[in-house]
Amino acid sequence: MKFARFLADGAIRAGVVNGEVIREIEGNMFTAWDYTGNVFRYDRVSLVAPLAPRHVIGIGANYVASSEQLPVELPDIPVFFFKPSSSVVGPEAEVVIPSGVGEVKFESELAVVIGKEAKQVSEEDVWSYIFGYTVANDVTAPQFFHPDGHWTIGKSFDTFTPLGPVIETELDPRAVSVKARVNGEEKQNSSTKLMIISISKMISYLSHVMTLQPGDVILTGSPVGAELVGPGTVIECDVDGIGTLRNTFVAAKAPAVSIQRS
Amino acid sequence: MKFARFLADGAIRAGVVNGEVIREIEGNMFTAWDYTGNVFRYDRVSLVAPLAPRHVIGIGANYVASSEQLPVELPDIPVFFFKPSSSVVGPEAEVVIPSGVGEVKFESELAVVIGKEAKQVSEEDVWSYIFGYTVANDVTAPQFFHPDGHWTIGKSFDTFTPLGPVIETELDPRAVSVKARVNGEEKQNSSTKLMIISISKMISYLSHVMTLQPGDVILTGSPVGAELVGPGTVIECDVDGIGTLRNTFVAAKAPAVSIQRS
Repeated sequence: MKFARFLADGAIRAGVVNGEVIREIEGNMFTAWDYTGNVFRYDRVSLVAPLAPRHVIGIGANYVASSEQLPVELPDIPVFFFKPSSSVVGPEAEVVIPSGVGEVKFESELAVVIGKEAKQVSEEDVWSYIFGYTVANDVTAPQFFHPDGHWTIGKSFDTFTPLGPVIETELDPRAVSVKARVNGEEKQNSSTKLMIISISKMISYLSHVMTLQPGDVILTGSPVGAELVGPGTVIECDVDGIGTLRNTFVAAKAPAVSIQRS
Repeated sequence: MKFARFLADGAIRAGVVNGEVIREIEGNMFTAWDYTGNVFRYDRVSLVAPLAPRHVIGIGANYVASSEQLPVELPDIPVFFFKPSSSVVGPEAEVVIPSGVGEVKFESELAVVIGKEAKQVSEEDVWSYIFGYTVANDVTAPQFFHPDGHWTIGKSFDTFTPLGPVIETELDPRAVSVKARVNGEEKQNSSTKLMIISISKMISYLSHVMTLQPGDVILTGSPVGAELVGPGTVIECDVDGIGTLRNTFVAAKAPAVSIQRS
């Protein structure tokens, strides 16, 4: 089932995509919902991000280029990071490149949407806590990484986390392709089989640190091929079975971000 | 005005502390609320965290030991980090030390509660976006810091962010003392004048990166003197004019957190 959110008649609505239509729903997508009876044409509405996430959690450097490179031993402590929910935008939204930075990195990723409170869950059991999957673009301004390794600012700008187009609840994520096209040219295309830390391992691990809740979104890492791009670039991120998330990069109009400002 | 949340008759309620009583309120603390008419004795209720934060944002290494050490030049990129809202607990709650780690660090901090959407706000204007102030203990397990500098896991465990006892809306935070006592013995006691990056600078900077929203909480850094402590330790964090946030550290009963688990 494909869940989406969209703007129609001046309001953000939720619905289930069914071929060429969206059937509007009301209630809580994770627990109890019902059809309202309203039906919209899919090509006539503007999609927004398919959910307003509670937490957005990312994992760093999680793909190898080929299966022979998969490490035998995993790192003791994986590189996880948070992105603020204020950075989330939807399909077709503009991604704003901060002033003073000519280019930012796109990173196409498979995103997991948690549907049930998850605390100390074993690897085998994680699947029943997952509501579905969407596509993410983990936009990053490495120029704002702290020299000591803190990525927070470089990952946190408004518009830096496009999500969408839909949440697909029936995907098997263990061998799908994660792709990105830059102005139509393919730059990323890897199977999720090339993940270093698997989806089940990363969610089980996280659930032993923090209680995951419905609406938490986990970005599972980006394949090789991500690049820096400038204003005017159109990025299409794509995961088999979910769809294509398209966004255009634009330059900021605001002044540069600086702690020295007085 | 002192806002608190508390458990009474099986429900979490909000109220305004007035001497020895809490007057219950209903509505949205940040926008429009009213007294319900119910009054509770302050010493008869169990306080919980004074809000359920949207984001918890921390700043690293933000105090010097004495004013002569205040740097002339600020770092280009401050060390900011996120803590998940799932890590928040209230006064008197137990802080759980993860298995496989004997001790964790306490860090007493002044916490700022944002009350109004803040985007690209100047340093002079930040004050009108602040709802109030509370006390935080930014509990940290440095054993879970990634060697490349990522602090995420070491900051994110459940119970690692005690907040409380109240949100004080009438504090001038520019010269108050931030203290911690370990089993009654003073370990931290510094004026907020010893902050390297001031509250107005840090909130203005953040607001140029991300749109801050009501309910976002910013932990403004911990004075010198934070230490590792083990199970059984009682920590009292204290900020002049707000009150004392007391918590006891206990050992986890759950198995150790490991990515190698299969």
